[in-house]
Amino acid sequence: MKSAILSVGTELLFGQIVNTNAVYLSQQLNLLGIDVMYHYTVGDNPRRLSELLDHIYQDCDLIIATGGLGPTQDDLTKETVAEAFDDRLVLHQPSMDALEKRFAGRKIPMTENNRKQAWLPSKAEVLPNQCGTAPGFALEKDGRIIICLPGPPKEMKDMFQKAVKPYLEARSESVIYYKMLRAFGIGESALETALLDLIDGQTDPTIATYAKEGECSVRVASKRATREEAKAAVEEMTEKVKERVGKYIYSCDNEELCQVVARKLMEKGVSVASAESCTGGLFAGALTDIPGISAVFDRGLVTYSNRAKVEELGVRPETLERFGAVSRETAGEMAEGLARISGCQVCVAVTGVAGPDGGTPEKPVGLAYVAVHYKGKTQCRETTFRNQDRTWNRRHCVLLMLDTINKVLEEE
Amino acid sequence: MKSAILSVGTELLFGQIVNTNAVYLSQQLNLLGIDVMYHYTVGDNPRRLSELLDHIYQDCDLIIATGGLGPTQDDLTKETVAEAFDDRLVLHQPSMDALEKRFAGRKIPMTENNRKQAWLPSKAEVLPNQCGTAPGFALEKDGRIIICLPGPPKEMKDMFQKAVKPYLEARSESVIYYKMLRAFGIGESALETALLDLIDGQTDPTIATYAKEGECSVRVASKRATREEAKAAVEEMTEKVKERVGKYIYSCDNEELCQVVARKLMEKGVSVASAESCTGGLFAGALTDIPGISAVFDRGLVTYSNRAKVEELGVRPETLERFGAVSRETAGEMAEGLARISGCQVCVAVTGVAGPDGGTPEKPVGLAYVAVHYKGKTQCRETTFRNQDRTWNRRHCVLLMLDTINKVLEEE
Repeated sequence: MKSAILSVGTELLFGQIVNTNAVYLSQQLNLLGIDVMYHYTVGDNPRRLSELLDHIYQDCDLIIATGGLGPTQDDLTKETVAEAFDDRLVLHQPSMDALEKRFAGRKIPMTENNRKQAWLPSKAEVLPNQCGTAPGFALEKDGRIIICLPGPPKEMKDMFQKAVKPYLEARSESVIYYKMLRAFGIGESALETALLDLIDGQTDPTIATYAKEGECSVRVASKRATREEAKAAVEEMTEKVKERVGKYIYSCDNEELCQVVARKLMEKGVSVASAESCTGGLFAGALTDIPGISAVFDRGLVTYSNRAKVEELGVRPETLERFGAVSRETAGEMAEGLARISGCQVCVAVTGVAGPDGGTPEKPVGLAYVAVHYKGKTQCRETTFRNQDRTWNRRHCVLLMLDTINKVLEEE
Repeated sequence: MKSAILSVGTELLFGQIVNTNAVYLSQQLNLLGIDVMYHYTVGDNPRRLSELLDHIYQDCDLIIATGGLGPTQDDLTKETVAEAFDDRLVLHQPSMDALEKRFAGRKIPMTENNRKQAWLPSKAEVLPNQCGTAPGFALEKDGRIIICLPGPPKEMKDMFQKAVKPYLEARSESVIYYKMLRAFGIGESALETALLDLIDGQTDPTIATYAKEGECSVRVASKRATREEAKAAVEEMTEKVKERVGKYIYSCDNEELCQVVARKLMEKGVSVASAESCTGGLFAGALTDIPGISAVFDRGLVTYSNRAKVEELGVRPETLERFGAVSRETAGEMAEGLARISGCQVCVAVTGVAGPDGGTPEKPVGLAYVAVHYKGKTQCRETTFRNQDRTWNRRHCVLLMLDTINKVLEEE
């Protein structure tokens, strides 16, 4: 099946919002084994939309459209699509009932234009909206399918998972199963090299590597007649991948490193504190983004100045003098000082040169040290990947801190 | 002039990257007064690309294309575009010289496929690439223009500003001048209401409001025969807007609030420290993202637990007991404690309920207090906008902290 993603909305053409719907739908369709040939964005203009539909179906059998289903005057997708499929809009009573119930429950009057949302093409399969007001629908004619979804990402994703995915799976002869393995500490080219014979030698499962801001992923996917067959093939291949690069892989379920570490800390009830220099609070910020983390995260100190390192963490002025603020020794004393004052079980510290200024031949931009104090021992690691970019370096340091905690928790 | 943005790259169709180029170009073209009618994304496939060009020119006179100019085999944009414009690729010696110089400077051998980048349509105006290897170009025939830019955002933006903008301005009879005013502490609908008669009554300058993650912007734009005329019209209208909502406006030059505050602190040489609870380090993380901030930012304390608030900041246990961790009193003691221990001039503190859990009828999710201690006085503010979303609430608190610092620095 060949598909195109059609986004309707003038705000996209003004550059007011980023088209994350197209990204999500592309990923999901590819995972279902459906090729995505085009993305199109068009304003709320019936003539242009209608011409575009004709053009797209020259190449594709499936269009997934988002946006333009709402209650306002400029929402015209439904009318235009119905016309292109020789259909007309009729009142869909279950949708009207759902709308009335929703407004009654919220005790707000339903304005007349909201009723428009319950008018849908007569031959459509209606997709209920469990997160908002506008229902979606699927329409099929002469081997051409269009699926219209609401524009707000939350509503669109919910409808895709609950209604569109089963609809498309039912129309496919095969089933796709995949795993997304996530790795830290290895570059994409090294990862690809380590897996090259597996990548080249395989048609199913397929193996693909991806790079994203200092992390890598490996996608292992299989398309078979049944889900069980596909799953078995993926799991067998996943084991082979893990034999080669297992020590870099921190999740086989596409979890973020921060989520993995937070989950382990919360499950084990291990208390944690941080002392940051170059990352300036980003580690604490990332960890405290996880709901429930307050059960284990006690405090974070951003000791940006040397004075703060001495006063807050008890780093010795001699250490700063002799080895410098960016040194293995300072990182170690930061972690140990933090353990003394906080009493937390895992104490992590970082000090580095984020850039763009402040680098020297001995201590270049991107150099950083991460120390972890756990169970009476302090371990220290140095960055191996370095960059001139301040934002990249800071982000990379946060990942290195998380990875180091992950490793000491695993070692037990 | 009517335009379309054409993005070439299979990675977009796989959903591997977000199309931020289309957002940037849409904004820039709209600012130049050029309507954007469509966004298209297509893979590296010459036939589909060629058909799409025909289709687009039915409606548009200008295409801005990005991607597909690189050295690899699948980079085919140039060939296809040249053919569609009845042109052919020829060696462009200045581009070849620039390539050779670039590789020689980096002491890496230039592979054969890199030479491909110096072959460009014979009738094109070549746009040099100052940030990368692939040059861009503009081609014009029978009233149709295509401008091809490299895909990497940094290279594309640099080329747009240095070469494309002047190219398009030279083809326009009028000049657009605009100012983007940024506001905090007022919602978009209140902002629009305050400016409604100005918005409705004007055809030039035009006034438009935008909302973005808890902040608002007002764009004042004018299209006149000369830059001076347009500028004068915009400045006159900007004054009218400031008379109405000036107290919410923190920048008339589209600066981020964090940049504005960091610049003021650095210019005045005012030292700063932070104590964060619900934001968990995001304030310190945002401020330390600004290069050079180490001259004034001394330390940040993330006192997530009550124990940390007492031990690190000297908050009194009775205060926590009587008023709770999320209270005006606790925020004030956090800021005052921080001032005692750090000796910094500006000490900012925040405590709040980020959510999704932890809310009560008295202290709902989204409630937060920000305190600032400056010149012996402590001021405290409460959030007025509240949300159920943890990420939104945390981000909003950071903005409220920055806004509060901005206001005390202005009051002097």
